Amino acid sequence: MTSWLPTLQTATPEDGYDLAVKLARVAVKATQPDAAVRDRLRPEYAEDADALIAVSHVVATHFATVAAANNYWRNRT
Amino acid sequence: MTSWLPTLQTATPEDGYDLAVKLARVAVKATQPDAAVRDRLRPEYAEDADALIAVSHVVATHFATVAAANNYWRNRT
Amino acid sequence: MTSWLPTLQTATPEDGYDLAVKLARVAVKATQPDAAVRDRLRPEYAEDADALIAVSHVVATHFATVAAANNYWRNRT
Amino acid sequence: MTSWLPTLQTATPEDGYDLAVKLARVAVKATQPDAAVRDRLRPEYAEDADALIAVSHVVATHFATVAAANNYWRNRT
Amino acid sequence: MTSWLPTLQTATPEDGYDLAVKLARVAVKATQPDAAVRDRLRPEYAEDADALIAVSHVVATHFATVAAANNYWRNRT
Amino acid sequence: MTSWLPTLQTATPEDGYDLAVKLARVAVKATQPDAAVRDRLRPEYAEDADALIAVSHVVATHFATVAAANNYWRNRT
Repeated sequence: MTSWLPTLQTATPEDGYDLAVKLARVAVKATQPDAAVRDRLRPEYAEDADALIAVSHVVATHFATVAAANNYWRNRT
Repeated sequence: MTSWLPTLQTATPEDGYDLAVKLARVAVKATQPDAAVRDRLRPEYAEDADALIAVSHVVATHFATVAAANNYWRNRT
Repeated sequence: MTSWLPTLQTATPEDGYDLAVKLARVAVKATQPDAAVRDRLRPEYAEDADALIAVSHVVATHFATVAAANNYWRNRT
Repeated sequence: MTSWLPTLQTATPEDGYDLAVKLARVAVKATQPDAAVRDRLRPEYAEDADALIAVSHVVATHFATVAAANNYWRNRT
Repeated sequence: MTSWLPTLQTATPEDGYDLAVKLARVAVKATQPDAAVRDRLRPEYAEDADALIAVSHVVATHFATVAAANNYWRNRT
Repeated sequence: MTSWLPTLQTATPEDGYDLAVKLARVAVKATQPDAAVRDRLRPEYAEDADALIAVSHVVATHFATVAAANNYWRNRT
């Protein structure tokens, strides 16, 4: 089976950011495995400013990890 | 007695993520040891977008620790 | 296509702070891609003290990452 | 007088986790020194999912510190 | 034009703390540029315990960054 | 004038924890300088579980900084 998270290394900072977004979403699936429930909740929080800011905070926490894992992509040329 | 947390080292990033989810859950048990109460609360927060995002944040904080403990799995081949 | 995030390196701390603000906003776009919805939500949270403080927290988390990526701009003269 | 926190070093990750739980609780005592008030509040938050998740977040923040203090228990054999 | 953030280096820990307070405030300005609105919101959150604690958390996050940038002011004599 | 924060170095982990509690409180003073208002708010949040947990989180964030500043007090004998 393919892993959904084979590595924290990404080619670019932008890819690292996308990975952070993914990492934030997977925890929600782990707590609420029912896709139908998640689909029902989605429009609710996607139109709620507080929820959007809270999601952004989770992404920020994961991005810190991914960025450190990639040495902040310092060695790109 | 076997420890529920013998090590922070995991073979893969995905295993590290699963450990972060576990670390988030154990703190809830420590504060609310009664399994019956936890079972009663579970459906409540599992259908609440704000609670799911908050859980995701806790997982993100633990994942940062586990990832650092594993040197971000940089030496995998 | 040009990347919105080619690098975490910035010339100055102030530029790094601006990048942190940008990083906080992009996660909102990823969760709510509809610009019309975001525009509708904006006045709501921009006049809500709790939301403004929450945004400030997300910026702080990203600024920590950007500052580390730039070695805290220690080598500027 | 014996210190309640003589060291951040622990023998095992599990002990480190228990220390993180303790560190989270002591701050509550510092802000609310009256044990009777704390006892009154306890059942309230112990049956509130949002509060339990919030406690879990505080534990996660302390666990990051304790784990770093112990070099993530990497040298255990 | 003078930068509001020329450096993260400060002479003392106390100055570093003041800078953290400033960093927390600037993000609010970035999201709500209208000074009149900010002035209207200020008394509201300055008398709200939850908001004050939330502000304190943002300051704590920035202080971590500023302290690291200054090597925790370890080399002061 | 004596500084309220001359150093982040403390003799013991327990002293470091006390400093973290102090760092959390000072930010509240910076935002609400009026002691009479703060005194009025104190009983309110000191009897509110959510507020106590939030304060504990701020302390945890500062404790991480203070512990790092002291190299986790590893060199004590």
